Amino acid sequence: KVQAVILAAGLGTRLGLEEKAYPKGLLKVAGRELLLRHLILLSREGVEKFVLVVNPRNRKYFEEFLARYPEYRVILVENSHPERGNGYSLWCARLAVSGPFVLTMSDHLFEEAFVKRAVRGQGLILDRQGFYVDPVEATRVKVSEGRVVEIGKGLEPYDGFDTGFFVLAPEIFKAAERLVEIRQEISLSEIVQAARIPVTEVSGLFWTDVDTPEDLKQARKLLIRASVKGAGDGLISRTLNRRLSTRISPYLCGRITPNQATILSFLLGLLSAALAYFHTAFGGLLYQIHSVLDGVDGEIARAALMKSRFGGLLDSVLDRYVDFIFLSFLLLKLKPGGLLLAAGLLALLGTVMVSYTTERFKGAYGKDAYGIFPVLHYFPGKRDERIFLIFLFCLSGRPELLFPVLALLTHLKVLFTLTVFWRKRSELEEAQG
Amino acid sequence: KVQAVILAAGLGTRLGLEEKAYPKGLLKVAGRELLLRHLILLSREGVEKFVLVVNPRNRKYFEEFLARYPEYRVILVENSHPERGNGYSLWCARLAVSGPFVLTMSDHLFEEAFVKRAVRGQGLILDRQGFYVDPVEATRVKVSEGRVVEIGKGLEPYDGFDTGFFVLAPEIFKAAERLVEIRQEISLSEIVQAARIPVTEVSGLFWTDVDTPEDLKQARKLLIRASVKGAGDGLISRTLNRRLSTRISPYLCGRITPNQATILSFLLGLLSAALAYFHTAFGGLLYQIHSVLDGVDGEIARAALMKSRFGGLLDSVLDRYVDFIFLSFLLLKLKPGGLLLAAGLLALLGTVMVSYTTERFKGAYGKDAYGIFPVLHYFPGKRDERIFLIFLFCLSGRPELLFPVLALLTHLKVLFTLTVFWRKRSELEEAQG
Ligand SMILES: [Mg+2]
Ligand SMILES: [Mg+2]
Repeated sequence: KVQAVILAAGLGTRLGLEEKAYPKGLLKVAGRELLLRHLILLSREGVEKFVLVVNPRNRKYFEEFLARYPEYRVILVENSHPERGNGYSLWCARLAVSGPFVLTMSDHLFEEAFVKRAVRGQGLILDRQGFYVDPVEATRVKVSEGRVVEIGKGLEPYDGFDTGFFVLAPEIFKAAERLVEIRQEISLSEIVQAARIPVTEVSGLFWTDVDTPEDLKQARKLLIRASVKGAGDGLISRTLNRRLSTRISPYLCGRITPNQATILSFLLGLLSAALAYFHTAFGGLLYQIHSVLDGVDGEIARAALMKSRFGGLLDSVLDRYVDFIFLSFLLLKLKPGGLLLAAGLLALLGTVMVSYTTERFKGAYGKDAYGIFPVLHYFPGKRDERIFLIFLFCLSGRPELLFPVLALLTHLKVLFTLTVFWRKRSELEEAQG
Repeated sequence: KVQAVILAAGLGTRLGLEEKAYPKGLLKVAGRELLLRHLILLSREGVEKFVLVVNPRNRKYFEEFLARYPEYRVILVENSHPERGNGYSLWCARLAVSGPFVLTMSDHLFEEAFVKRAVRGQGLILDRQGFYVDPVEATRVKVSEGRVVEIGKGLEPYDGFDTGFFVLAPEIFKAAERLVEIRQEISLSEIVQAARIPVTEVSGLFWTDVDTPEDLKQARKLLIRASVKGAGDGLISRTLNRRLSTRISPYLCGRITPNQATILSFLLGLLSAALAYFHTAFGGLLYQIHSVLDGVDGEIARAALMKSRFGGLLDSVLDRYVDFIFLSFLLLKLKPGGLLLAAGLLALLGTVMVSYTTERFKGAYGKDAYGIFPVLHYFPGKRDERIFLIFLFCLSGRPELLFPVLALLTHLKVLFTLTVFWRKRSELEEAQG
């Protein structure tokens, strides 16, 4: 599977592109061309050579595009008879391919998690659930004994949907050849059905093909939503923050970079701290808004395939600064002495130590503490939950009560976390090998 | 090299053990029996089977000892004629060994770094520098064309010292056999010389053999000193703290566990904070003493082969608590308002963020930031340096000046650190693969 074939010889009639022959595969979703998404995601899974089947009219656009990305090894194969269908496009690629290969369409979009699983499959990658598809439009597949029996729209009964992602053996070209000799127009579906290729299921993950301008917008929106899975969210994030940020991110995606979003969120957080010094309730509200918008950088990064370790590091460090500075301004406003100041200092320490403890775990064991010890999720205190709590205290008119509560909560969480680690220390050490 | 032979049939005359025949290999250094050190360190390097050559009188002691460590697979071979020398002991092991094997003596001690390098060598492991040996007592080796030419005490000229660690091929038993047939007493050195085995150099690391009670004490001391290499020390640690803690650790090694040392150091740190509230100068002095003693847990752990990731995590977390709480008490004593309080809060934030930033790097890239970017060493602000600076301010009578200085120093270091990471972010990301 070190090779991939991408079919891009189609004519793009419904997107109003036909006159200029501008290829669908070069339209952008979340700041990246559809074809670039394939190049990035498949390269990460080990694909080192791409065969791109184009037509004579759109060829120049692809050549221009590929010149900007010399890091990808892409061989262009020209299908001079695109009217003969995408099955014929596949057959055009036969001389450029040796050995098993991934096959997909240039106008399809797959979320990262889908590609990671699909490349490990065999044959037609089948989506049994079709969460994201229009069941009328999508191509259906009937399966028997693990192989494709029938494939087409409107099949009844059917077992799942054709995702447009395949992992094929070169023998497929023999089935293609037989059809090419006897027919004018050949679809990929016909070849697949004639060859009775195997089927591997990948369900529940986002994929789509892009046919209309609405599809593009919808794809961007769903890509942002899909990217939120497993992002370490607490209760408030899941129920409130993400619902808001995922509505905002699509408009920023492709317009600002993730790191720019991180810095803007940081500045908004500092602003909320300054505001809290003069008006606690409004400051608290702006702090909560910052918490919502703080999710945008990650959403953009994941949807646009621009995730970077430095970006995550910067976000974490700046989050610690915002949290400490916000609480500091709140505390300073109260002109605290004695016990209140001590409670404030303890709350500040605890807030940072909750993050430090799990970060130190990652540094020691190379793994995420929440992943290994799901019980940690149940102890309240993730950032989104903490900020919401602080926001409520800011509205309450008794912000000074926040500090003893926060101090107690955070240090108990640290103690709890250390105890969990301590009890499992021998098993953890052995697992390191 | 999945097998190791350890010779333990010798008679231990100079340690006053001969009457009871108590074996030297079961004497403890830094809380661990010499033999146990071999089992631990060699197992870590992949050795799965040990052949221990004992004599009829000390056999029972070894059997008792090994019963306590069933996790190691140790085969006992009895040498009924220990008076025939350690070369004869080696020959006794011939039937229990198949394939290449590590060979060492039960009364030798090697630091962990030595074993890690030596197992990757071939033949006799030679120490050309002999930092830790008595050049009169130690066995010298003459080398030619990478092989042993002559071996014995008092050789002139000579190329290095025989460390008592070998990586041998089974062919050695043929050379042993020839000598065994014609001689009564055979030394390992004679066999090694006759077989002209190759030589691999491992110099500058700590190894010793234990002959006298003074050797035991000296070994413990040197093991503590050797363990300090590369422990992330700043200037104050290298020039002051370690010189003191390495004098204290030998007495605690084997008496308290590393985690107990960590907790005691933490309590001392809290005490110094409380003291600082009432008497700044004495509190600062005790804080500096805590800083010295804070090295003990790591020194004990490394010397006694009790290093654990949890131990390191606990030490880091408790260090952050001590630092924050000490500065908090100092600040509380000043009954700060306005600007001083703001400076104090900034100093507190910066102190924790210096550690958090590099810890977050480790979590992101799996590597130590100081290792990849040595330039970070030159920006002052490691814990030992910080604490010493705070100590000086405590003596100065103007402790309030500490906070703006610390705030500036720490946040500049964080900014510097982030800039270093940011500039190299692409290379770092690619290196992750
Ligand atoms: Mg952020
Ligand atoms: Mg410590």
